[in-house]
Amino acid sequence: MTIRPSFSSDNHFGAHPAVLEAMARVNDGPATAYGADTVTERAVEQLRGLFGPEVGVFFVFNGTAANVLGLQALVRPWEAVICAAGAHIAVDECGAPEHFAVAKLLAVEALDGKVTPGAVEQQLGRVGDQHAVQPRVVSISQTTEYGTVYSLAELREMAAVVRANGLRFHMDGSRLANAAAALGCSLAAMTTDVGVDVVTFGGTKNGAVAAEAVVLLDPSLAADFPYIRKQGMQLASKMRFLSAQFLALLEDDRYLVSARHANAMAQRLASGVAGLSAVQLTQPVEANGIFAVLPTVLRLALQAEFRFELWDDSKEEVRWMTSWATTEAEVDHFVMRIRELARG
Amino acid sequence: MTIRPSFSSDNHFGAHPAVLEAMARVNDGPATAYGADTVTERAVEQLRGLFGPEVGVFFVFNGTAANVLGLQALVRPWEAVICAAGAHIAVDECGAPEHFAVAKLLAVEALDGKVTPGAVEQQLGRVGDQHAVQPRVVSISQTTEYGTVYSLAELREMAAVVRANGLRFHMDGSRLANAAAALGCSLAAMTTDVGVDVVTFGGTKNGAVAAEAVVLLDPSLAADFPYIRKQGMQLASKMRFLSAQFLALLEDDRYLVSARHANAMAQRLASGVAGLSAVQLTQPVEANGIFAVLPTVLRLALQAEFRFELWDDSKEEVRWMTSWATTEAEVDHFVMRIRELARG
Amino acid sequence: MTIRPSFSSDNHFGAHPAVLEAMARVNDGPATAYGADTVTERAVEQLRGLFGPEVGVFFVFNGTAANVLGLQALVRPWEAVICAAGAHIAVDECGAPEHFAVAKLLAVEALDGKVTPGAVEQQLGRVGDQHAVQPRVVSISQTTEYGTVYSLAELREMAAVVRANGLRFHMDGSRLANAAAALGCSLAAMTTDVGVDVVTFGGTKNGAVAAEAVVLLDPSLAADFPYIRKQGMQLASKMRFLSAQFLALLEDDRYLVSARHANAMAQRLASGVAGLSAVQLTQPVEANGIFAVLPTVLRLALQAEFRFELWDDSKEEVRWMTSWATTEAEVDHFVMRIRELARG
Amino acid sequence: MTIRPSFSSDNHFGAHPAVLEAMARVNDGPATAYGADTVTERAVEQLRGLFGPEVGVFFVFNGTAANVLGLQALVRPWEAVICAAGAHIAVDECGAPEHFAVAKLLAVEALDGKVTPGAVEQQLGRVGDQHAVQPRVVSISQTTEYGTVYSLAELREMAAVVRANGLRFHMDGSRLANAAAALGCSLAAMTTDVGVDVVTFGGTKNGAVAAEAVVLLDPSLAADFPYIRKQGMQLASKMRFLSAQFLALLEDDRYLVSARHANAMAQRLASGVAGLSAVQLTQPVEANGIFAVLPTVLRLALQAEFRFELWDDSKEEVRWMTSWATTEAEVDHFVMRIRELARG
Repeated sequence: MTIRPSFSSDNHFGAHPAVLEAMARVNDGPATAYGADTVTERAVEQLRGLFGPEVGVFFVFNGTAANVLGLQALVRPWEAVICAAGAHIAVDECGAPEHFAVAKLLAVEALDGKVTPGAVEQQLGRVGDQHAVQPRVVSISQTTEYGTVYSLAELREMAAVVRANGLRFHMDGSRLANAAAALGCSLAAMTTDVGVDVVTFGGTKNGAVAAEAVVLLDPSLAADFPYIRKQGMQLASKMRFLSAQFLALLEDDRYLVSARHANAMAQRLASGVAGLSAVQLTQPVEANGIFAVLPTVLRLALQAEFRFELWDDSKEEVRWMTSWATTEAEVDHFVMRIRELARG
Repeated sequence: MTIRPSFSSDNHFGAHPAVLEAMARVNDGPATAYGADTVTERAVEQLRGLFGPEVGVFFVFNGTAANVLGLQALVRPWEAVICAAGAHIAVDECGAPEHFAVAKLLAVEALDGKVTPGAVEQQLGRVGDQHAVQPRVVSISQTTEYGTVYSLAELREMAAVVRANGLRFHMDGSRLANAAAALGCSLAAMTTDVGVDVVTFGGTKNGAVAAEAVVLLDPSLAADFPYIRKQGMQLASKMRFLSAQFLALLEDDRYLVSARHANAMAQRLASGVAGLSAVQLTQPVEANGIFAVLPTVLRLALQAEFRFELWDDSKEEVRWMTSWATTEAEVDHFVMRIRELARG
Repeated sequence: MTIRPSFSSDNHFGAHPAVLEAMARVNDGPATAYGADTVTERAVEQLRGLFGPEVGVFFVFNGTAANVLGLQALVRPWEAVICAAGAHIAVDECGAPEHFAVAKLLAVEALDGKVTPGAVEQQLGRVGDQHAVQPRVVSISQTTEYGTVYSLAELREMAAVVRANGLRFHMDGSRLANAAAALGCSLAAMTTDVGVDVVTFGGTKNGAVAAEAVVLLDPSLAADFPYIRKQGMQLASKMRFLSAQFLALLEDDRYLVSARHANAMAQRLASGVAGLSAVQLTQPVEANGIFAVLPTVLRLALQAEFRFELWDDSKEEVRWMTSWATTEAEVDHFVMRIRELARG
Repeated sequence: MTIRPSFSSDNHFGAHPAVLEAMARVNDGPATAYGADTVTERAVEQLRGLFGPEVGVFFVFNGTAANVLGLQALVRPWEAVICAAGAHIAVDECGAPEHFAVAKLLAVEALDGKVTPGAVEQQLGRVGDQHAVQPRVVSISQTTEYGTVYSLAELREMAAVVRANGLRFHMDGSRLANAAAALGCSLAAMTTDVGVDVVTFGGTKNGAVAAEAVVLLDPSLAADFPYIRKQGMQLASKMRFLSAQFLALLEDDRYLVSARHANAMAQRLASGVAGLSAVQLTQPVEANGIFAVLPTVLRLALQAEFRFELWDDSKEEVRWMTSWATTEAEVDHFVMRIRELARG
């Protein structure tokens, strides 16, 4: 079957071959279930090497769970999570945060995907008012849903507001590696060093089959998390197969190599369409997503040959995603066809 | 590292090699995410071939989720699930059914793991009483937690009570294949044909990495289930890798071959210890679990060489599990050591 | 203790004397608990007389519960409620709808407190998308939080959109009597006849001690509601004392007389400040609330003598509420002082 | 209408006249809503006088809410509450604790209504096991559902087990006054002094219209409780009317006078049937409930003249309740008829 080349989602790509090889490698006889195995021990240690020696590391199956369970560690039922109106937790998780973390979301406008400290402060007007949910967590996405990346300065500024107001800091890092690649900094520099309390370190979009790490940068959260994960239906019995995926991603900094590649492909694509009047980028291209407005006829013509999503139909905005698996040839061909079809 | 041979849990064994090969085979370029791919289409069709052409099939990551989400499809928050006091949903899922399915469990005594129709009827005394949760679902495990298997006659009798009282019928089939092998009947004969509404068809204990199917035998439940699964944090983005696991299990009836083998190993073990006064079996051996009471000193001596669980410390009852990966040689060696140590 | 005259909230006023008298009257010996008493029977029948012979009527203690439990009757956990961004359920019930009705709210801008059919339709773009909560209920407030009242034509237009899209129609009627008085129509005309499914008929703000009726205009919802109410912690053991409050409100159309009076007092107040350049009304005065912007110094001077709330501090908007207990003399004195201080 | 004399439930009786008078007395013009009024201030102070100067006091509408919200203050979602199998929270609150407090109940056998320290300890075997809910609270009823009363020694013994295991101590005191009357001790002696963390002080069964106090003996729980109560749909807008009920019950120790009277009526009834072979008491009569087994024909004959409940139909056990409103004449008449009908 021929599939149109995809710029649709980093979930469309398969698994990095090294991931499947690592899974096969750990399939070597019985091992203790539920995480008390040596593969998991190694993966946790390696992640502690990246995030900090004291952090709690818990593997789960997917990104929704990583976010929801991470939030549950931070809130009580009458507390609320401040996030971007377009955050994945707000619009793409079918109400899981509300139902399972039992947290109300206070969504704030974020035109470039970034929550600002000012927007957070505007949500604090009813602190202490028993009629209103009490803001407790600021949740941001790094990389954001709009492919933008918070700078270290922006993260520090947010952390200051978080601390000043007795809040907690949560980071949806389903594309954390892409942000690290974009900023040229370590994972710890963006998270532990800034004062993030809980981060999702996404494996799936980075090349795993299905594996995410909830990293509890505040170690005091780790005591309860085993129960949160098990009750949250995310405790893998054959845990070593989740852990092995992370071992593969971490080996030789593969997560970073893949993320740099994906980001580079996005830059290549953005450069390729630069100057085309038919294609207006709507966001700065900082990681592996390109957002653009283009004429409907051009979009339809392109979608006949390539897969990608109409992101916001109210303004004919499309999203093009690149990944570890995207090739230069695919990008160049895509750019060529855009240019050809745009000339029409 | 040398690991002691394990009779501890069917979760201790790795994945069947065919499962990992199938996962690698489907890793062949981009595919639509979230289940709209051809691999998933094929796996669903094959399961429909086994359970019925109309049934809903939804893959999830693990058994806790399969049970909880299956139950959520059947209950409203004030309704209750009648189950065995020792059922996995009652004692081994950290309250997930109560929190996420929002269902109260009404646990009934079940000394051999089986809920009886009479025990169900005794829970119906407060139907219509607004002060009490309203029984709505009977949930049984096939194979039970005690390694016993409901006969087809027992299943039909239960189904009759379920229907007569307007209830729904849920089956935790994390070891469904073992039950089919034990009864020598098809999956449909134990489920669809009997009138079960929702069944978990367990892949993980049968040789998968991490994959379970929630099979909605009542097709009217399928319309809402996509939302239940997504909100339940169980929608895999790269779904094809879950589906591929089931393709591998179903190919050449591998699930059945594996289950028959596991059951045969349990019979071999049970036969091997028959007649030993130091080892008293506490349950009939019908699938792949053996439950026995033995002297503490014997148990400790065995546990120094083999891995297995003390199941009920109040009576020194142990559990020995076999799996698709258990070999005759392992069983024979285990039996030999039991006999030697029992002679002590 | 002298209390400053209050235009703060219709909750500040006590109970109508007739309500307390009715409670004393039914305190005449034992009665069956939990609603199976003759007082409750009478109150339910009278409300059926107003709303329709088939409707379900359930008394609860307060408005939060009436709304939350009414919504719970209409939604499953993955479904959502479309409401005004400033709706009481959205901002003043401390997350109770999300936690207890297990419903996500989709809040839409509503500058005059009214949700428009167009705003509802804009929330329907992701119907059928498993990643998003599914809109299921439109909840409006009649009277709105801004003191405005949906006309019968507006209600019919909304009902048409609700039905056309397979939604359900919920009405928060904590000030339903004021709306009926404003429109000069019956309660049924605004609810049953329009096609509302569930309405809260508020007693407390109308003069009760603490009593609200959840009226299920769709009678099919009544079978489950006893469990929803009991589990919702709102089943009064001595129910007759709730029912008696409604008997008092309904006797001689007292609810309507009180509402007409409250509305008239609001008109008197609005007329009194008309033409004052210092006082700009921000909403049409249609029921018993007046919203106005006035200079901070004027507000502070007034608040030294009268109690009322700063409604929206971002624009110095205040809210003045009138009630069944507000007197003409109080209004006239308030108006006089406003005029004097405004000249100041 | 003539109503048969009732020994059915302490909820069947109306309100003590002093309660309604107190409610009328506070109905004297506007007051700040939601508890910031002087009536509430006084009631809270008086309860602090009884329970301790630091305790948190929060009024709610009914007993289900008092228990559920009190428990919610003590548990996280993966934690569990150990209680008697027949506890009100376990069997008569329609699953409210599970749904709203998000707590699993671990029910233990309690033939006389009392949970024993040994039964608590047996529930602790899986502490630290992530697959199991974690016991966190021991909840007992004082007076129990079987009309028995924990002695101070029993309470201290339980408190020791609670503390030794890092648990919290909850007391359902819907009939707390009856227990105090039975033990001849103060409310604090049974609660604060023993080390109870949260107690429900029941007003309704003691003569209120509808009012219960959640008393947080551990003052650190008070900071969050306003949100728990509001989100729990139990924040009364016209709070003074709840508070006034407690003022009436506390005035001149009315709660104690009423409880002593109810208990005395139960003793009178028990004495009256003593020696009758047809009536076998099944529990010691320590407060205001009598449990007895009697022949079906006798029961039916009595129920034709008097109202009371068949408590446990499996053994023809009935429950007779007395209250503040039960008169000596009623008891004597009931006794006379029992004796006459028993003679047959």
